[in-house]
Amino acid sequence: MNIATIIKDNDLQSLFTEGNFGIEKEGLRTDPSNQLAMTNHPHVLGSRVYHPYLLTDFSEAQPEIVTPVQPSLKLTFNWLEALHDVLHRSMNQDEYLWPNSMPNLLPDEDEIPIVRYNDPDAIRYRQHLADSYGKKKQTISGIHFNFSFSETFIEGVFQKQTTYQTKTELQNELYIKLSANFLKYEWLLLYLFGASPYADSGFYDSKSGRLLKKPTDYVRSLRNSSFGYHNHDEVIVNYDSVDSYVKDIENFVETGHLSEEREFYGNARLRGKGDSLRKMLESGVQYVEFRSFDLNPLDRLGISYAQGRFYHLFFLYMIWIENKATRDEIIEGQEKMLNTADENPHEVSAYQKEALNILEGMLSMVNDLSLNDEFEELIHKAQEKFYHPEETLSARVADQIEEQGYLTFNRNLGLEFKEFSTERPYVLNGFEDMELSTQLLMYDAIELGVEVEVFDRADHFLKLSHENIVEYVRNGNMTSKDTTISHFIMENKTVTKKILAEAGFNVPGGGEYHSIKEALDHYSNYQNQPIVVKPKSTNYGIGISVFKKYPDKTSYKEALDIAFQEDDTVLVEEFVPGTEYRFFVLNDEVGAVLLRVPANVIGDGKSTIHELIDHKNDDPLRGADHRAPMAYIEKGAIETLMLKEQDLTFDSIPEKGKTVYLRENSNISTGGDSIDFTKEMDESYNAIAVGIAKALDVKVTGIDLIIPDYKIPSTEENPGYSCIEANFNPAMNMHAYVTKGKGRRLTKGILKMLFPELVQQQKQQIQETNK
Amino acid sequence: MNIATIIKDNDLQSLFTEGNFGIEKEGLRTDPSNQLAMTNHPHVLGSRVYHPYLLTDFSEAQPEIVTPVQPSLKLTFNWLEALHDVLHRSMNQDEYLWPNSMPNLLPDEDEIPIVRYNDPDAIRYRQHLADSYGKKKQTISGIHFNFSFSETFIEGVFQKQTTYQTKTELQNELYIKLSANFLKYEWLLLYLFGASPYADSGFYDSKSGRLLKKPTDYVRSLRNSSFGYHNHDEVIVNYDSVDSYVKDIENFVETGHLSEEREFYGNARLRGKGDSLRKMLESGVQYVEFRSFDLNPLDRLGISYAQGRFYHLFFLYMIWIENKATRDEIIEGQEKMLNTADENPHEVSAYQKEALNILEGMLSMVNDLSLNDEFEELIHKAQEKFYHPEETLSARVADQIEEQGYLTFNRNLGLEFKEFSTERPYVLNGFEDMELSTQLLMYDAIELGVEVEVFDRADHFLKLSHENIVEYVRNGNMTSKDTTISHFIMENKTVTKKILAEAGFNVPGGGEYHSIKEALDHYSNYQNQPIVVKPKSTNYGIGISVFKKYPDKTSYKEALDIAFQEDDTVLVEEFVPGTEYRFFVLNDEVGAVLLRVPANVIGDGKSTIHELIDHKNDDPLRGADHRAPMAYIEKGAIETLMLKEQDLTFDSIPEKGKTVYLRENSNISTGGDSIDFTKEMDESYNAIAVGIAKALDVKVTGIDLIIPDYKIPSTEENPGYSCIEANFNPAMNMHAYVTKGKGRRLTKGILKMLFPELVQQQKQQIQETNK
Repeated sequence: MNIATIIKDNDLQSLFTEGNFGIEKEGLRTDPSNQLAMTNHPHVLGSRVYHPYLLTDFSEAQPEIVTPVQPSLKLTFNWLEALHDVLHRSMNQDEYLWPNSMPNLLPDEDEIPIVRYNDPDAIRYRQHLADSYGKKKQTISGIHFNFSFSETFIEGVFQKQTTYQTKTELQNELYIKLSANFLKYEWLLLYLFGASPYADSGFYDSKSGRLLKKPTDYVRSLRNSSFGYHNHDEVIVNYDSVDSYVKDIENFVETGHLSEEREFYGNARLRGKGDSLRKMLESGVQYVEFRSFDLNPLDRLGISYAQGRFYHLFFLYMIWIENKATRDEIIEGQEKMLNTADENPHEVSAYQKEALNILEGMLSMVNDLSLNDEFEELIHKAQEKFYHPEETLSARVADQIEEQGYLTFNRNLGLEFKEFSTERPYVLNGFEDMELSTQLLMYDAIELGVEVEVFDRADHFLKLSHENIVEYVRNGNMTSKDTTISHFIMENKTVTKKILAEAGFNVPGGGEYHSIKEALDHYSNYQNQPIVVKPKSTNYGIGISVFKKYPDKTSYKEALDIAFQEDDTVLVEEFVPGTEYRFFVLNDEVGAVLLRVPANVIGDGKSTIHELIDHKNDDPLRGADHRAPMAYIEKGAIETLMLKEQDLTFDSIPEKGKTVYLRENSNISTGGDSIDFTKEMDESYNAIAVGIAKALDVKVTGIDLIIPDYKIPSTEENPGYSCIEANFNPAMNMHAYVTKGKGRRLTKGILKMLFPELVQQQKQQIQETNK
Repeated sequence: MNIATIIKDNDLQSLFTEGNFGIEKEGLRTDPSNQLAMTNHPHVLGSRVYHPYLLTDFSEAQPEIVTPVQPSLKLTFNWLEALHDVLHRSMNQDEYLWPNSMPNLLPDEDEIPIVRYNDPDAIRYRQHLADSYGKKKQTISGIHFNFSFSETFIEGVFQKQTTYQTKTELQNELYIKLSANFLKYEWLLLYLFGASPYADSGFYDSKSGRLLKKPTDYVRSLRNSSFGYHNHDEVIVNYDSVDSYVKDIENFVETGHLSEEREFYGNARLRGKGDSLRKMLESGVQYVEFRSFDLNPLDRLGISYAQGRFYHLFFLYMIWIENKATRDEIIEGQEKMLNTADENPHEVSAYQKEALNILEGMLSMVNDLSLNDEFEELIHKAQEKFYHPEETLSARVADQIEEQGYLTFNRNLGLEFKEFSTERPYVLNGFEDMELSTQLLMYDAIELGVEVEVFDRADHFLKLSHENIVEYVRNGNMTSKDTTISHFIMENKTVTKKILAEAGFNVPGGGEYHSIKEALDHYSNYQNQPIVVKPKSTNYGIGISVFKKYPDKTSYKEALDIAFQEDDTVLVEEFVPGTEYRFFVLNDEVGAVLLRVPANVIGDGKSTIHELIDHKNDDPLRGADHRAPMAYIEKGAIETLMLKEQDLTFDSIPEKGKTVYLRENSNISTGGDSIDFTKEMDESYNAIAVGIAKALDVKVTGIDLIIPDYKIPSTEENPGYSCIEANFNPAMNMHAYVTKGKGRRLTKGILKMLFPELVQQQKQQIQETNK
């Protein structure tokens, strides 16, 4: 079976380039003095017993990020970014993640803390590793890269070949070939991306008795050299077939060379379903785990996307080539690996010629697959590095260590990467194109240890699951806890008002009209009242006219004309004077109260309005296109007009302390300020907001109340409020980060509603740990 | 206080012409031989103990239609129409409603059945009436018209006057004036709309001993003459104030002249909240019940809309005029009433001059109120009738009775009106602009005795309530029993497919693409498969291309171009061969299975396709614009093309028995046939459809399954189906009336889901009655 021929003859190119990807990345938590952190794994990250993404490796201070398996490398990187955000923000404020594979300043071997959680098996296994390899060695961190072909590709190939009787046979053969050839050629990747040229001298001072000759100069990869942790030399596994692979490992366990199957540290581990190797014999190989990758300290994720794509291309090439590496070729390849690891980063590879041949082969595969120019570019860059060793990662890292010193170099990068994750706390990097509340919810779910799947990214559709609870959430706020009809009730302002009025709540009086004539006929109904004329379905205040005094008939008609342009039904409502507050009701409680103030600047007696706006817009909480909790204040026609009405221009200099408004409407989306009022609001209004939500039979809603004085309690005789709207899609992000006051993390409330037991469990755990 | 001046000076005209209206209409069920029906009140109409709309008056054979109070006369008439539909369709097939106020052929007095339901109080009261007035008299039927001013109008007047201290005082005064003046002038209405000129001779043969001299000729209104039922002569009530009104009636009860308060039969009854008159003293008069209106036998509702509007105008005029009728004027008015009732219909009114004066006054009010020309027209017509008595209703009815005979005249009309209600059984007249499933649901809810409120007509939003259960329903199928998220899951085809696939259901394979390029890159994924290319959000099949063989790349691209014109996300899916069936799943059961067949005609060897289409379109179940369960077959470009591909034109004459298809797609909306398959479908597929609904956590959905052979049961090895869609807004009407097979009344299932106890209760009741 010639796989390349089958692919080419049967147009399987695009399927071939698909696949499933997962990345595991370890790293060390580091304290301000660049020492291994002695603190506990962050409490907020739920329990490591079930956390799907954020675990610990050998040491308590060695968090491990595990992305879920994704059907594209891009998505895997999205997850890697997101998980870094969650980890960074959960850690103690003064800690950072050490970006290098080789460790930070380690304490004495005995003091390196093994993981501290309540799983005797985990502790026992790690104690064995400490005894067998030494604790210091176990702190070396790296990247594991999991890869499988797409099911459809394997199916496609299976249909077109005659060699294998079953799909499992074919599948096993593909993964065996991939692994064997990888082990034969992986030195090429190490040359390009090895990135652990140096270690702090403390690392070499190991009690394990396995001291080797400390290198006199930088190398390509200490982690992949004899200083790294590998299985003991006698553990050599056969990649002829899955059968021989499994039997060999089982044998080493039986003979005591390995304590258990998972101690096999080969750079290409075959993986089946579940943990047991035996099972893999039945179900076939599902994916391969590649383990030889150093952390790339120059990239905030420990691996760059270009690097990942190159690895993928390399994997493809490993099965594209005709032959499968023999046992001898693998052993030879592993020798080349060790040699490459030990090479000086600035030296030309000992295997330059062979490397260039391989790259040439990869290039021809890229052409055969009609992949785009970017892939060629990746290979061209690799080729160049074989001529220019100073451009390799190890050389660049070594240069910077030489220049700044090992500790400073790593610390600066570690802090910079942490800063990237924390500077815009409302963003979940990797998913920053999604609606903000969904990003917050994903963040909180990941933190809690809930499994998150993005079911439809453009539609902000998440699947959240933990054990046997499965919940789907859209826009962060639409869940299984609300009813279909309550959604449509809130969508329909007239229906909402009717229900609330019948339930005894105050709503503005008014009428619904289907033509200008009908509305004009009812002009006198609103006599001497301030009124609002608005399209039945309003959005962001479009088409609304507010008359704080009863308008003359001409103005009334003009307002109708405007409103009827937006909708074929128009509401005329009593205008209720007072201040509008947004009550976010969540599961029968008020989660947050917000006051929205129209876009404004406050004079300092020196700056122009122009400058004051720019200054206010510098706040990282402000952004464009709903990509930040608050919006930029614009300098458009409406703002110009608003200033003109106050006899001002953008060049005016308001006196110190004077507030200048740039908008009439208070929407956050037009630059308004958000002020948290959760504590300030009189409790009686909270009860009303909750009552309204109950009357509408809804668990998640944004209730807009007009309240003349929030300090005067609402009573039966003097209700002191009017409900103008119940929002079926209320923004949670608006409450999370505010201009003034305390942010309210409503997304946690959503999780508490959906996973009450899990949240309770996490709370107890934090309390216990804090005891 | 001059009310007219206050209205004019304060622009209250439009508020003045608003109001609340309710109509009660009695009538007799009549058997095929024009005799009073001896059958029971229709069982399906739930229980008269709580039925809000369809009750019985004195006799078991005397149904009473009670519209809910509506804020416009138009809406009240909508209800009157709808309730007629429900009553007509519930009655025994050979019975009809007697359209005349004077009865049909009555049996002996003793045999007239008093109501037969289980309420001792109701029976006792009716027995008293039978004893006191005679049973025959109690079968005389009529219209009661309830009217109140709009709250806002009363509030508006209250603000602008100084005479009354409280709104209740003002309100009481308005209604007292309205009632008193009505009683003074109502003879004018009787002249115009009296409509009981004649009674069958059997009517006069009464055992009650109250025999009067039988009229020798037609009169204007037997019902309002001494032959009608009125309180005994000594019962004269004072309309000076609410206080005196209440005290008078209470007094008559105390002295035994009335058995209870409700026996007061004045033509203008003041009504408060609840039944007790005492309470009215506290809460004030809420509305007035006018009781002197004969059934208009020429109108299928017993009253025409124009008549209703004239009454309304007349009420307005009764308070527009300055003075309130004195006790003497009322007594005089009642004498004029009796005189008018006794007049020969073809004679000029004895009070012609006074009538013309009143009408002139009404005309000037209409001008003062700037009401439109239609109102003037109503008055002009009334004026004319005072010059031409032959145009009055009583004269026209008398003429027809003379011509056809009393029985034939009434029978023909009664049958005609019943036919109107039954000929299009899918329509609820009065609400025929609403979506069809909503009409069916309203019908079933009314029948069951559930209270129905149309909360938003254009949005098909209903409030259904019974005792303390309140349910809101949109489009007949969106309820509180489904979750918000399940709605959005079904709205999103990709999410639906993912969930179903994870739950182990068969869904077509495929991909989702966001650009033509991306989709083209995956062309080879579908190699050798039949595929469907469709916009992610499809509607009525727009933008879909079906390739029953793997298309060449050019055709594939063309299909993508078409699909991307409809949506920015396009799905390419495996095309699953087989027949598509719609499974309507309702509350974990399959309520109906439907096969949809593309628009077609079957040749008869003589007619052209043109003629065959016309003939098929004659079916009253077919209509345009979703106004019928099935759609007209069009003769447009697509049909022309489809014929052309078969070498046919609209003028071709297909041979006998040959089926000619006019469409490729099977949508009912493009003229397709609907064939019920509920019984035929193998049970295993029902289980699958229910399973799918459960996996989506949804109670109401339309599941589309492709099934190659519905007779071969689905098994694990050979599922035999593929689920291509779950519809969040499935049409129920499509199943109710089908081209072939049995219609399935799914709306009853919706009610069973929402009001399980009520439906159970009704079922038991029907069973008991049938024993």
